[in-house]
Amino acid sequence: MPSPIRPTDDEARALARLLLTSATTAALAVLDETGAPRVSRIAFATAEDGSPLSLVSSLSAHTGALRADPRCSLLLGEPKGRGDPLNHARLTLAAMARFVAPGSPEHGALAARFLESHPKARLYIGFADFAFVRFSVSRGDLNGGFGKAFTLTPADMGLV
Amino acid sequence: MPSPIRPTDDEARALARLLLTSATTAALAVLDETGAPRVSRIAFATAEDGSPLSLVSSLSAHTGALRADPRCSLLLGEPKGRGDPLNHARLTLAAMARFVAPGSPEHGALAARFLESHPKARLYIGFADFAFVRFSVSRGDLNGGFGKAFTLTPADMGLV
Repeated sequence: MPSPIRPTDDEARALARLLLTSATTAALAVLDETGAPRVSRIAFATAEDGSPLSLVSSLSAHTGALRADPRCSLLLGEPKGRGDPLNHARLTLAAMARFVAPGSPEHGALAARFLESHPKARLYIGFADFAFVRFSVSRGDLNGGFGKAFTLTPADMGLV
Repeated sequence: MPSPIRPTDDEARALARLLLTSATTAALAVLDETGAPRVSRIAFATAEDGSPLSLVSSLSAHTGALRADPRCSLLLGEPKGRGDPLNHARLTLAAMARFVAPGSPEHGALAARFLESHPKARLYIGFADFAFVRFSVSRGDLNGGFGKAFTLTPADMGLV
């Protein structure tokens, strides 16, 4: 069977970067306490360096799961408008999660940045049970529609 | 810490059933070959009995992953319109995947059903590398917006 993965080109790189910078939510996959996968919706933004970022509640199952095992995956790109939704671009990221210490300078900088894209989060960003999580991305699988699959490095996506 | 999970009520059951019957795509979390989680977008429909269903390509990484380990999770409910996207309803399902034999009577019945909600799939539904996957759901985690979290049984969601 021939590989369905195309050679990476600048159009693919640009599409992945667009999905990263325009997404405000993501589907997050984590491992539950039995090692089974679990997917839920999280808020999504990027830090100043372009790396993925979320604000999560300690009441959410995904938060406990990430504290127990940082391996995770993010799906960016919502189906929009007409046509087959599988023909809309989306990006799967393989990542490791790292929690940011509350009250740290890093937390303050991320809060200012996060509120630019999530102004409604002002209502709860200061709550003690909310924490920032940063994602270190090791790989991207871009699907730009039927027959348009690419495997991207962090550098391809503007992530170092 | 008090439990954030509310007692299940009929409104929660109805919302979960609405998400099941109205979704045309889902985020699917699987385990990759290393046991790490991986999330991607799939087409979504329900069979006659209300149980979740997808049509997947053997060229997709999630298909190989589900054949190796059927444990998976589905996220239904796309963020829409204005306001904080985390205030929009979504449903996380814990499930096991089962592939339907191509050419079986079950396959034929599912194809007719699937095309009702995914008419564009007529272009590829007959390709040899596409297969139906059915999902046996063991649990639902409904998030109807802030402070509206419920844990649902299959029966709550109309699934038996």
